[in-house]
Amino acid sequence: MVFEILKDRILKDGKCIDGGVLKVDRFINHQMDPYLMKQISIEFIRRFADLKVNKIITVEASGIAPAVMLGYQMELPVVFAKKHQPSTMADMYVADANSFTKKTDYKMVISKEFLTKEDHVLFIDDFLAYGSTGKGVIELCRQAGATIEGMGFIIEKSFQNGRHVLEQAGVKRIESLAVIESLDNGRILIR
Amino acid sequence: MVFEILKDRILKDGKCIDGGVLKVDRFINHQMDPYLMKQISIEFIRRFADLKVNKIITVEASGIAPAVMLGYQMELPVVFAKKHQPSTMADMYVADANSFTKKTDYKMVISKEFLTKEDHVLFIDDFLAYGSTGKGVIELCRQAGATIEGMGFIIEKSFQNGRHVLEQAGVKRIESLAVIESLDNGRILIR
Repeated sequence: MVFEILKDRILKDGKCIDGGVLKVDRFINHQMDPYLMKQISIEFIRRFADLKVNKIITVEASGIAPAVMLGYQMELPVVFAKKHQPSTMADMYVADANSFTKKTDYKMVISKEFLTKEDHVLFIDDFLAYGSTGKGVIELCRQAGATIEGMGFIIEKSFQNGRHVLEQAGVKRIESLAVIESLDNGRILIR
Repeated sequence: MVFEILKDRILKDGKCIDGGVLKVDRFINHQMDPYLMKQISIEFIRRFADLKVNKIITVEASGIAPAVMLGYQMELPVVFAKKHQPSTMADMYVADANSFTKKTDYKMVISKEFLTKEDHVLFIDDFLAYGSTGKGVIELCRQAGATIEGMGFIIEKSFQNGRHVLEQAGVKRIESLAVIESLDNGRILIR
């Protein structure tokens, strides 16, 4: 099971950083393990097997690897929201978000060409922490009239309550492949 | 052949922007076509079939999709250089680069943990324009003592001379899947 593989990998290669940060840059967000990304994408397919989606949305940069592997397996286009406004982009949807690890506010943008009211979206990202990025995506989809069918995360830090934030914002299906219950005292506690 | 597929796609979905920019955000760097990325990765494997590499390096964000598909097919780890210094990263190599489309300077960083003198690197990116990003990667590898075996680009704009810049910097193998000879007068001319 991918849960066991992911759990072992988090315990072996993950590192606690002060302030509730779990560093997984050995296999997810700096060095990436493509085979693990493929296993992760297959597990997302299982979890969301009952949903009809036509597009996968993620956010640069760490969400791109799992999203593109999932898009490949599901034969769906993948759109990554950008964290800056490209000089070559004219018509776009814009939402505010902030980065928990970087402690900065930023604008998330998606071109109006790639998100429309016809879209049934599966959102994929590496982490669910406080839910700020997810809320930004909800706002982008609201502006576009697109429907969010589900949100999938590789790792959820349940003690930061992002799931509650996204449920309150109306997301009906949230799946996380590994749930971290605590990082207290430098110890990774996985549910 | 992936060249024909890519050429047709560039002519159908690419757009010329003033100042020598080719916008391909319908299938490469905003909305992504994962199946095309897989075809691209297979062509890179063919082009670099004679090289021995143990690691794929790319740069966030648009290089991640082709690099992770290639890493998956080749069963190799992929490291993406970051365009900012993460708060959770301590020991790192740093190089200067500038973005042609964004007209900004930035620092490229890779953790010392993920690039060493043992590494034989294949660098993958979406565009070869003036070669600034590639030069940054050369500098990161120089600092680490890693060997660059080759550099592969989905699209090269030959009139911006990045190939010459990288060859002068000592790169022996450069492969581009589609070479744009001119974007003059809003017309895409592919070799």
